[in-house]
Amino acid sequence: MATQTKPILHGYFRSSCSWRVRIAFALKGIEYEQAPVNLIKDGGQQLTDQFKALNPMQQVPAVTIDGITLSQSLAIIQYIEETRPGPRLLPADPKQRAHVRMICDIIASGIQPLQNLYVLQKIGGEKMQWAQHFINRGFEALEPILKQTAGTYSVGNEISMADICLVPQVYNAERFKLDMSPFPTIRRLNQTLIENEAFKASHPSCQPDTPDDMRQ
Amino acid sequence: MATQTKPILHGYFRSSCSWRVRIAFALKGIEYEQAPVNLIKDGGQQLTDQFKALNPMQQVPAVTIDGITLSQSLAIIQYIEETRPGPRLLPADPKQRAHVRMICDIIASGIQPLQNLYVLQKIGGEKMQWAQHFINRGFEALEPILKQTAGTYSVGNEISMADICLVPQVYNAERFKLDMSPFPTIRRLNQTLIENEAFKASHPSCQPDTPDDMRQ
Repeated sequence: MATQTKPILHGYFRSSCSWRVRIAFALKGIEYEQAPVNLIKDGGQQLTDQFKALNPMQQVPAVTIDGITLSQSLAIIQYIEETRPGPRLLPADPKQRAHVRMICDIIASGIQPLQNLYVLQKIGGEKMQWAQHFINRGFEALEPILKQTAGTYSVGNEISMADICLVPQVYNAERFKLDMSPFPTIRRLNQTLIENEAFKASHPSCQPDTPDDMRQ
Repeated sequence: MATQTKPILHGYFRSSCSWRVRIAFALKGIEYEQAPVNLIKDGGQQLTDQFKALNPMQQVPAVTIDGITLSQSLAIIQYIEETRPGPRLLPADPKQRAHVRMICDIIASGIQPLQNLYVLQKIGGEKMQWAQHFINRGFEALEPILKQTAGTYSVGNEISMADICLVPQVYNAERFKLDMSPFPTIRRLNQTLIENEAFKASHPSCQPDTPDDMRQ
């Protein structure tokens, strides 16, 4: 496989969906290249014709891998899961897999799309309250679910796709200054996970496109 | 398996996400019971404590199956796919599976959450334009993708989860009176699929909770 080219991640350091994919690559130990797409500069580089050809939704992330370009972070991560060795990102048990996917989809369909850059730009002046409202609503649902499903991690004692979705969403919650005190399970899981090497190496604060004043 | 209880779908006739699950059950030939949750009556039956215990997100669908209750339609459908025989809802080829999941997620994360009942209630007066905008934006991305991936159906020549997501989203587009003329591939796929028995039997116009004046 020496001739195989590395996957290319077209992402943005602070995009929570890009971070999901970076975590998956890191957990699997897959080397990849980053092709940063600055969502702010020049009115948004995701809006160029060049990027639209990669992802007609004009959002990050997109990943070029094995001769195809995929968008949608969970589709990308499941493709990686199904084609690459390394620690599994979905449990073996079908019910546990269903719980992982349910948690992922609460975040990926029920929270993130309502507080992403594009939607908040349309909301305008009240965007802070709007974002807080939808993250809070999602976390109010996630907290009792995670209380049931969690062990050391979101579902049982293995890191899974649920954790990959949870940590970047907590990062967004903190950006929008959400009061996290009603969510002890989410906070506990996040605190455990952010100490993990794969989550650390993929953190928005240390990517190739992270601005100097946001580096840690 | 005579003693096995049927799955129970807690859904709403007109909910596009409930319809996704009904299509999956129909394609697999799985008998199930319906426990309707009226999203309008009594201020919304999904907001009761009783339903909140089934799905803390207070959305339909939720499915009680094999002793657990799952929410999030794509998690439910993939659980059905992984535990039940019958025609597969995801292709065998990993790249085709990735394309199916990408199409599903464009709809389930990129379109539907932005035009569902809860969000439109928050948007208020401009909800028609808001819904049209987000469905149109998603379809503008889906059209060129489907042009590449489609055969008879959304990805190749087998019905898949992508079709299960597409048809209910077109139904919503029609409800919001979207101009469908710029989307010939989506229209062609929808026209083929709505003639399929599983899509017909699960259609919002003929469910146990469909009001008499909306029956066809």
